[in-house]
Amino acid sequence: MEKLSLTVKKITGPNHKLMEATQIRLDSLTKPLGSLGKLEELAKQIVGITGKNEPELSQKVIFTLAADHGVTEEGVSAYPKEVTAQMVYNFLRGGAGINVLAKHTGAKVVVVDIGVAEDLKPDPRLIVKKVNYGTKNMAKSAAMTREEAIKAIEAGIEIFNAELKNGIGILGTGEMGIGNTTAASAITACFTNKPVEEITGRGAGLNDLGLKNKIDIIKRSLFLNKPDSSDPIDVLSKVGGFEIGGLAGIILAAAANNVPVIIDGFISGAAALVAFKIEPKVKDYMIAAHCSVEAGHQVILEHIGLKPLLDLNLRLGEGTGAALGIGLADAAIKILTQMATFKSANVSEKKE
Amino acid sequence: MEKLSLTVKKITGPNHKLMEATQIRLDSLTKPLGSLGKLEELAKQIVGITGKNEPELSQKVIFTLAADHGVTEEGVSAYPKEVTAQMVYNFLRGGAGINVLAKHTGAKVVVVDIGVAEDLKPDPRLIVKKVNYGTKNMAKSAAMTREEAIKAIEAGIEIFNAELKNGIGILGTGEMGIGNTTAASAITACFTNKPVEEITGRGAGLNDLGLKNKIDIIKRSLFLNKPDSSDPIDVLSKVGGFEIGGLAGIILAAAANNVPVIIDGFISGAAALVAFKIEPKVKDYMIAAHCSVEAGHQVILEHIGLKPLLDLNLRLGEGTGAALGIGLADAAIKILTQMATFKSANVSEKKE
Repeated sequence: MEKLSLTVKKITGPNHKLMEATQIRLDSLTKPLGSLGKLEELAKQIVGITGKNEPELSQKVIFTLAADHGVTEEGVSAYPKEVTAQMVYNFLRGGAGINVLAKHTGAKVVVVDIGVAEDLKPDPRLIVKKVNYGTKNMAKSAAMTREEAIKAIEAGIEIFNAELKNGIGILGTGEMGIGNTTAASAITACFTNKPVEEITGRGAGLNDLGLKNKIDIIKRSLFLNKPDSSDPIDVLSKVGGFEIGGLAGIILAAAANNVPVIIDGFISGAAALVAFKIEPKVKDYMIAAHCSVEAGHQVILEHIGLKPLLDLNLRLGEGTGAALGIGLADAAIKILTQMATFKSANVSEKKE
Repeated sequence: MEKLSLTVKKITGPNHKLMEATQIRLDSLTKPLGSLGKLEELAKQIVGITGKNEPELSQKVIFTLAADHGVTEEGVSAYPKEVTAQMVYNFLRGGAGINVLAKHTGAKVVVVDIGVAEDLKPDPRLIVKKVNYGTKNMAKSAAMTREEAIKAIEAGIEIFNAELKNGIGILGTGEMGIGNTTAASAITACFTNKPVEEITGRGAGLNDLGLKNKIDIIKRSLFLNKPDSSDPIDVLSKVGGFEIGGLAGIILAAAANNVPVIIDGFISGAAALVAFKIEPKVKDYMIAAHCSVEAGHQVILEHIGLKPLLDLNLRLGEGTGAALGIGLADAAIKILTQMATFKSANVSEKKE
């Protein structure tokens, strides 16, 4: 718990003074005032987070954490549980959506086994931080112990800190875990008090009957475990997942180290929610990449107070939306640092 | 007129058979069906346009056409008219928003003087296709002659054809012209029958009084010139601009040569509208990059039937939104061509 406490203590909030100076700089560039809209806001936010006038984003990292979920026993996913491990191998071979989009945006993918249900073949590119062999079935008991929940969050902090030694200019969150939209919906219901029906979707592709069953299972899990919404660790342990805890740790560690965090979709959103409940100041370090097709994601974004950059009907996860969001963040900082000013370009300013 | 007729005749529509095959291919990739949303639709559209299973988008071009508008005499812009020429020099020096975002997305910027009001200093990177020294004041007479309107469109076709010799995998439209939102609003009002108030915005930054004056000037111009909405060349000549005509020509030429066109904001939208009215088949070759802050842009997109990829509150023009849209198109084609299939990656498929 000490690692977590120390990390949270380091989160101080963005540098508002630098953000004001950045607004003045943005307004001096050869474009009508505010005409690059959200890109300008993004540039300002990233300056505030990094505390640097000219943030250096060339080292882009996407953390893709994989874990299994005991609740898959209840038939809550359209895909078999084995897919979690199979997709980890796919990530390592470079064949998944996140590999393609990370390469496109110039980001490194850090693949982590934080709780896959089987031992994976050793691979120098795979980080193994297994908290356990998948969670327990939350419809029958708590998904994990309180100790495991803390361990998952602290594993995230360790993963971040290890990668920070190589340099991280900006990071994106990603995950893989068959069954994890069930956990994300349960977490969302718990923290936002929204009816389970409103924040539960089809995940990787459930039919109507499957969706109904998933909703029932989430309700049963919440009723059985009675997670305490005022205690984020309790919520994570009772209805969460190891990858969700790990990502919450990464988000907190990023904020503690002045690194901007691009939040991917619904499961990453649930991790963001856990981090936000642990330390609300983390909000200012988060950038929501997109709005997922999963209805619960919109509820999370509104609850935290984040506005998504993209709305492309994505629902893949892995960090794919975050990869695209990193591209926009990169563009925003280039606008700030590479454009000419009215003065330097000899362009006349606005009349009046 | 022959160049235009021949170009329009070459537009046959996308290859639907290949698009169906692409859907099957997308569904075989290691991701839940349809989970990459609009990126998948985009990949399919680009295959249909190019007629290639694996479209090659590495040669990206943004055409930024500059021209002046006589109607600036009426005080319709917050910036002085000289800014058009000053910004052309800024484009050539690489200091403008479009330079930064084109570089970010790996696109070449082709800068064209299609009607700037002064002779610009010769520059090997500047294409000079001047139809005239700016348009006439449309509040007092037609903006240009019918011959000039055709010449502007055909200049666009020539610009495209010349660049095609270097290779164009995908293109974006861009423009610069103080006063050109006034022309774009007049064109939009004419083709869509919407009240001028609903499709006129603040352009580069008018105040309330300036906006009121702009609306009055557009109404007066439409009343005086009575453009015939069933004759797109008539509309362009009476209330258009040279850059708008040129971009319409580029859009038509792209469609005739199976090149996907990323449409930028409001002024590019007005050009797209002119091209669409000349040949409705051109619609399937267009991809709307974003939805501009200018209210008329949304009206244009709905009228043509295009859904924008991005909504970032942009209103700079130059092709800046198109540059970001090209990045997404590129990502979409990489998803299609670089991802592993369930079979090749040994990943289990959906249950049932």
